[in-house]
Amino acid sequence: MVKVLLVLYDGGKHAQEVPALLGTTENELGIRKWLEDQGHTLVTTSDKEGENSKFDQELVDAEVIITTPFHPGYLTAERLAKAKNLKIAITAGIGSDHVDLVAANKTNGGITVAEVTGSNVVSVAEHVVMTILVLLRNFVPAHEQVASGKWDVAAVAKQEYDLEGKVVGTVAVGRIGERVLRRLKPFGCKELLYFDYQGLKPEVEAEIGCRRVDTLEEMLAQCDVVTINCPLHEKTKGLFNKELISKMKKGSYLVNTARGAIVVKEDVAEALRTGHLAGYGGDVWFPQPAPGDHPLRTAVNPFGFGNAMTPHMSGTSLDAQKRYADGTKAILESYLTGKHDYRPEDLIVYNGDWATKSYGQRDKINTVKQ
Amino acid sequence: MVKVLLVLYDGGKHAQEVPALLGTTENELGIRKWLEDQGHTLVTTSDKEGENSKFDQELVDAEVIITTPFHPGYLTAERLAKAKNLKIAITAGIGSDHVDLVAANKTNGGITVAEVTGSNVVSVAEHVVMTILVLLRNFVPAHEQVASGKWDVAAVAKQEYDLEGKVVGTVAVGRIGERVLRRLKPFGCKELLYFDYQGLKPEVEAEIGCRRVDTLEEMLAQCDVVTINCPLHEKTKGLFNKELISKMKKGSYLVNTARGAIVVKEDVAEALRTGHLAGYGGDVWFPQPAPGDHPLRTAVNPFGFGNAMTPHMSGTSLDAQKRYADGTKAILESYLTGKHDYRPEDLIVYNGDWATKSYGQRDKINTVKQ
Repeated sequence: MVKVLLVLYDGGKHAQEVPALLGTTENELGIRKWLEDQGHTLVTTSDKEGENSKFDQELVDAEVIITTPFHPGYLTAERLAKAKNLKIAITAGIGSDHVDLVAANKTNGGITVAEVTGSNVVSVAEHVVMTILVLLRNFVPAHEQVASGKWDVAAVAKQEYDLEGKVVGTVAVGRIGERVLRRLKPFGCKELLYFDYQGLKPEVEAEIGCRRVDTLEEMLAQCDVVTINCPLHEKTKGLFNKELISKMKKGSYLVNTARGAIVVKEDVAEALRTGHLAGYGGDVWFPQPAPGDHPLRTAVNPFGFGNAMTPHMSGTSLDAQKRYADGTKAILESYLTGKHDYRPEDLIVYNGDWATKSYGQRDKINTVKQ
Repeated sequence: MVKVLLVLYDGGKHAQEVPALLGTTENELGIRKWLEDQGHTLVTTSDKEGENSKFDQELVDAEVIITTPFHPGYLTAERLAKAKNLKIAITAGIGSDHVDLVAANKTNGGITVAEVTGSNVVSVAEHVVMTILVLLRNFVPAHEQVASGKWDVAAVAKQEYDLEGKVVGTVAVGRIGERVLRRLKPFGCKELLYFDYQGLKPEVEAEIGCRRVDTLEEMLAQCDVVTINCPLHEKTKGLFNKELISKMKKGSYLVNTARGAIVVKEDVAEALRTGHLAGYGGDVWFPQPAPGDHPLRTAVNPFGFGNAMTPHMSGTSLDAQKRYADGTKAILESYLTGKHDYRPEDLIVYNGDWATKSYGQRDKINTVKQ
C-alpha cells in the first residue's frame, strides 16, 4: 500500500463554498476516497517551507509526492536525499522546475517526474492575452477611478493604446506561446514574432502570420509587447535582467506568465520606475507565495500605471482544476496499477534520464545566456 | 466665416504631458490653428451641463458643433431650438445618440449630423474582449490582492473560468459586434452567437464560425457571456431591464460598451447583488460623467467580485484619438469648402432625413421591446 503526499494551497471557506476548487487542501483533487478505497494513505498539507514543515516531515516515507506550480512543494536535492521511499513526483499542472531534476535522476535509482501536459495551456494563453490588453488599454487605473467615485478620462487615456498595429513577440513558441500567437492573430497586430531554438513548421507560421527572429535581442528591439512563454531552467533563470531589458524598446510592455525567476525582479521594477518599461504583468513570482514586500506587487511607471500582476492563478481556473485533477489521477492510476503507461508528453524525467527537451538537452537551448 | 463650438473633456496636466491626447479641451483635436488660419472662430469648452453652461451660451450662434461620446454635449430639442445658426453637428467618434435626431431633422430646415464611422470600432472591440477576459478570469480582485500585499489563490480562483468552452453572444453584429466575434474566434468558445435584425452573409458566418439566433431571449438563455453592441435608440433604451436580465443564464456575464442607457442600472446592480449576473463590465454610463453614487461604480456579486467598469474610454485610446481627430477634420473641411462630399457612412441625418438604418427605419428594428 502506497503513501501519497499532496502539497496544495489552502482553500479555507472558499473551498467549502466552491467544491470545484479541486486544487485545495480541503478538496484534495478529489482523490482521497478513491485512494483510501484501494487501501492507500493520503497526507495533504499546505505547510511546505522550512525544515520543520509538514512537507519535510512527511516526505521521508512518501512513495508519491504531488504538488502544483501555484503553491509548489520545492523538491530540492536535500529533500530528495531524505525521501528514501520516493518513486514518483507528480506536478498537478505544468512546470516541474520546483524539482531539482538533476538530483531526481540520481534519487533512489531515478525517480519519475511527471506533469499534466496541456492541462492549463489554454488558461495561461488566455491570461497572457488578457494581461496584454489590460496593460495596453490601461485598465487598472481606469477601473480604480470609477470604483473610487472619480471621473477623469484624460488621466487614464493618456497611456491607453490599441493592440492593433503593435508588434508582439513571444519568448518561446511551445504549447502556450503558439496558443498566444493564435489568439492574437485577429487583433491586426503589425507583426507577430517569436524566438525559439526550434521553429514552427512553415505552414503553421503562414497560418498564424508570424515570423521567427534569429536572436532574442533582435526580437526585443522590435517589440511593443513581449510575452515570456519558456520554461525555467539554468539558462533562462534571471534571463530578463537589467542588460537584456535595456535591449527592449522604450515604453514597451513585458508579460510573464512562465516563471517568476526568469526575470530579475529588482531590474523589472527599476525599468518600470524609469519608464523604460511602460508596463509589467503576469502571475508568476519567486518565491511563491510572494512575500508582502516583493517589489513587483507595487512597481509602477512614472504615470503611476503599468502594473497588471495577479497571484499565480492563470493555470488554476476552475476549468483547469478539473483538467489537472483528472490528469493527476490518470498518472497516479498508471503508477499504482504498475502499468506505467504514461502519456509520453507527461514525462519530464524517467528511468534516470531526461524525457523531454524542455528541461533537458540544455546545451541545445539557444538563449542569450550562452 | 464660421463659428465652431467644440465640447471636449478637460485634459489638464495630462494634456500638457501627452500632446497625443487630442480629444481634450487643451489640444482641441489639433484644429485651432488650421481653423483660425482660414479666418474661422473656434470656441472650446468642457462646461456642458445646465442652462447657464458655456455650451448653452455659445451654441446660440454656432454654425458647427463638435462633441465626443466620451463627454457629450447633449443636443436636446430645447437646445436645437436655440441654435439658430447651426448647420452641422459632428461627433468626434461614433454614436450620435446625444443628439435628438428627430428634432435635428426639423432644425433650421434640417441640420447635418455626422460622425467618424470606423474611427474607434477596433478600440471598442478590443475593450470588449479585454472585459470578457477580465470578468471570466476574475482579474480585478486578483490584482487588488497582490497590490495590497496579500496572497490567497483560492479566494480568487473560486470564480475564475476559461473563455474556452463558453457560449458568447452579441446583441447586434454591426461594425463592432462583428469585430468582437472575429477576435473571439481562436479562443475556442463553445458557440459564438448573434442577434440582429440583419444577418451576416453566410460566408462571413462560416468564416467566423458564428450563428444567428432568431430572438434576443433565445440567445440570452444560451449565453455564458453577452456583449451589447447595438446603438442607443428608442427601442434599445432600457432594453436590459429586470425582466430581460431574468432571461439570461444564472451566473452569466454582461458586457456593455455600447451606451449606458441601454441597461437599467438599478436592475443590473440588483442582478449582480443576487448573483444572477456573475459580472458586469464595460465603459458606458448614463449620464456621463457618471455621478459619484452611480450604482454600477461599486456593484458586485455575492463573492464581492464581478465589476469590470471603467470610465468611457474604450474609443478614446491615443490611437483612436488620432483617427477621430483626422476624421473630424475631414468632415469639417468638406463642410467649410462647401463641397459636402462626405463619406456616406459618416452621415446620420442629412437634408432633413435619416441617412442610416442604425438610428432611422426604427420600425424595422426587431428587438424584444415591440
